[in-house]
Amino acid sequence: MVDNMHPLPGMAPSPILTSAHKIGIAGLGLIGGSLAERLVQRGRYVIGWNHNSKPYESAQAKGIHTVDTLEELAQGKPDVLILATPLAAMPVMLERLSPVLPKATTLTDVGSVKGQVREQVVAAGLGSQYIGAHPMTGNERSGFAAADPELFADALWALSVDEHSDMSRFLTVADMVTQGAGNRLICVDDAIHDRCAALISHMPHVVATALASLLAASPERQVAAALSAGSWRDMTRVSLTDPKRTQAMVVEDSSNVAALLRQLSTKLERIAGDLENGVSLTQASESSQELAAFFASAQPFRNYKTAQNERQTCARMPELESLSLSDENWQQELADSARRGQQIVRFLTTHEAQVLPALSW
Amino acid sequence: MVDNMHPLPGMAPSPILTSAHKIGIAGLGLIGGSLAERLVQRGRYVIGWNHNSKPYESAQAKGIHTVDTLEELAQGKPDVLILATPLAAMPVMLERLSPVLPKATTLTDVGSVKGQVREQVVAAGLGSQYIGAHPMTGNERSGFAAADPELFADALWALSVDEHSDMSRFLTVADMVTQGAGNRLICVDDAIHDRCAALISHMPHVVATALASLLAASPERQVAAALSAGSWRDMTRVSLTDPKRTQAMVVEDSSNVAALLRQLSTKLERIAGDLENGVSLTQASESSQELAAFFASAQPFRNYKTAQNERQTCARMPELESLSLSDENWQQELADSARRGQQIVRFLTTHEAQVLPALSW
Repeated sequence: MVDNMHPLPGMAPSPILTSAHKIGIAGLGLIGGSLAERLVQRGRYVIGWNHNSKPYESAQAKGIHTVDTLEELAQGKPDVLILATPLAAMPVMLERLSPVLPKATTLTDVGSVKGQVREQVVAAGLGSQYIGAHPMTGNERSGFAAADPELFADALWALSVDEHSDMSRFLTVADMVTQGAGNRLICVDDAIHDRCAALISHMPHVVATALASLLAASPERQVAAALSAGSWRDMTRVSLTDPKRTQAMVVEDSSNVAALLRQLSTKLERIAGDLENGVSLTQASESSQELAAFFASAQPFRNYKTAQNERQTCARMPELESLSLSDENWQQELADSARRGQQIVRFLTTHEAQVLPALSW
Repeated sequence: MVDNMHPLPGMAPSPILTSAHKIGIAGLGLIGGSLAERLVQRGRYVIGWNHNSKPYESAQAKGIHTVDTLEELAQGKPDVLILATPLAAMPVMLERLSPVLPKATTLTDVGSVKGQVREQVVAAGLGSQYIGAHPMTGNERSGFAAADPELFADALWALSVDEHSDMSRFLTVADMVTQGAGNRLICVDDAIHDRCAALISHMPHVVATALASLLAASPERQVAAALSAGSWRDMTRVSLTDPKRTQAMVVEDSSNVAALLRQLSTKLERIAGDLENGVSLTQASESSQELAAFFASAQPFRNYKTAQNERQTCARMPELESLSLSDENWQQELADSARRGQQIVRFLTTHEAQVLPALSW
């Protein structure tokens, strides 16, 4: 698991215990295609399969090997097989993989929802081979033509495990992420992942769509669209995503998204009430105070972003911390580390990782 | 009003009837400072005043003249005096200007709300000299140090007038916008402006703040923040704006913002209900259909953005159309043009403008 090209000072490279050299990717769309290119660029052997062979010529030109069927992809015995197919296609993919996936191959995915994918994987009898994965990258485009390995520059992945997960399979996927893609990772359980992904992605996609929908319905939409500048562009950008993809993402995480929409809606109704009650910038009414408190409640996020920007513009990488994992409790230790705000940069051994320290909130 | 440097083919430059050569700017913050630099770069004579002299040295280095008091700024008889001070400071500024503003000077501003500013201007006895203005640009920073004339590259302004507005004063401000800043404009009444600005800016600022506030309050905020990528960054960017500035903007447009928050909230509650009722990607329940209809309702906006991108990436400027204005009904003719989706690029005469044709919805 050590980056042999750049051994850490004072350390002899330790033997690679759990490497992911041969990587199969099912689905050469925006994410699968970008990841495939990134892994090839960084020296991994990547075999791709797509539901149609449209992207094969361009993929091959970029060093990605291709096969004609999902079954062939599995039978090639990759160390890791990544399902980068749409969420809606998952059950069919798993049904086809179930009889042919070699036991030695670790199965993972890039889906934006983890609980439901695991249920489907378990139902297909592949639970013991599975480690969930969700790279936190993407844009509003789709298809191999839009693929760009730079989407994975400095990306962070969320891996997800449960109490039955195999540690060496986790380490194999972690090798693909950290040494293969050159990315960072955190690892939590499906429930935490799905709640957090709903908060920072799935629910906001609904909000962006609702904003776009309000504009589209306005009789003054030409004037409003003319007036729209950066704030509107940014807040509605993800409404331009393929709506079928967004809908699938929201449906698969529906209970978390629904709960967050209710919370947001309550907040917005309350602010609307304050504004209707009469607010003033100079007189301190109850409504004005509540409005001020609302704006103040986002201050920890502003502070966090300031700290994050400072770190990003700082020339020196912050000193890495060490994280130890035990055989008995590694899942919880990883989740605790993620909750503290650490991010894994690399594994030194199977039981010790180097982590980026937390930014405090 | 004609760009004398680039007369249109076959046309002799017509006499400049309503030029804005000498421009006073009160408030050298992000917007005032950026506009001042832009106008200087494009050959206008700009005098700035700021409530403190901190930015004066840098401003002077950029060719902006400075004076020590707001009164001096007015007494310098600028063609246009722009109030680029915070909305909350407007009444005090107007009280000071009222006794000293020369009749020949046209008063304008850059405030994000137009109805309330006009009320304050009228109360200060300056209504007959006033044309409202709102340049649709900005970012989350503030102060002259953050000023950047590029903020006004290809910007669009909304001017606002009422039935008492003076056409030649409108044309003077229009000259500053089109020939001075090299920008486009539309012109509507205050009510349309404020409703539309609430839709595409003021209300979304509240939504961005509410999203940031939800994250800040989450016990899993470290995990959620780690997972956050482009969609979250873009949807919360404006929550990083100085909250006092945002709060002022929202308060001054409170009834429009409140109404839109209620509409948005109703939409979000309905989607939450659909998600709670059980939605599926494969089975067509009523909830699933409503969810699909929700995502489809944003389609006109997606189409509009596609058309906009096509226009922007097209090498050739679309052929301009002509807009005629009458002395009797010019305000309504301008508003109708804006509602049709046209944008004024330049005036050929006092009664004829060239407009960018509408993108259809």
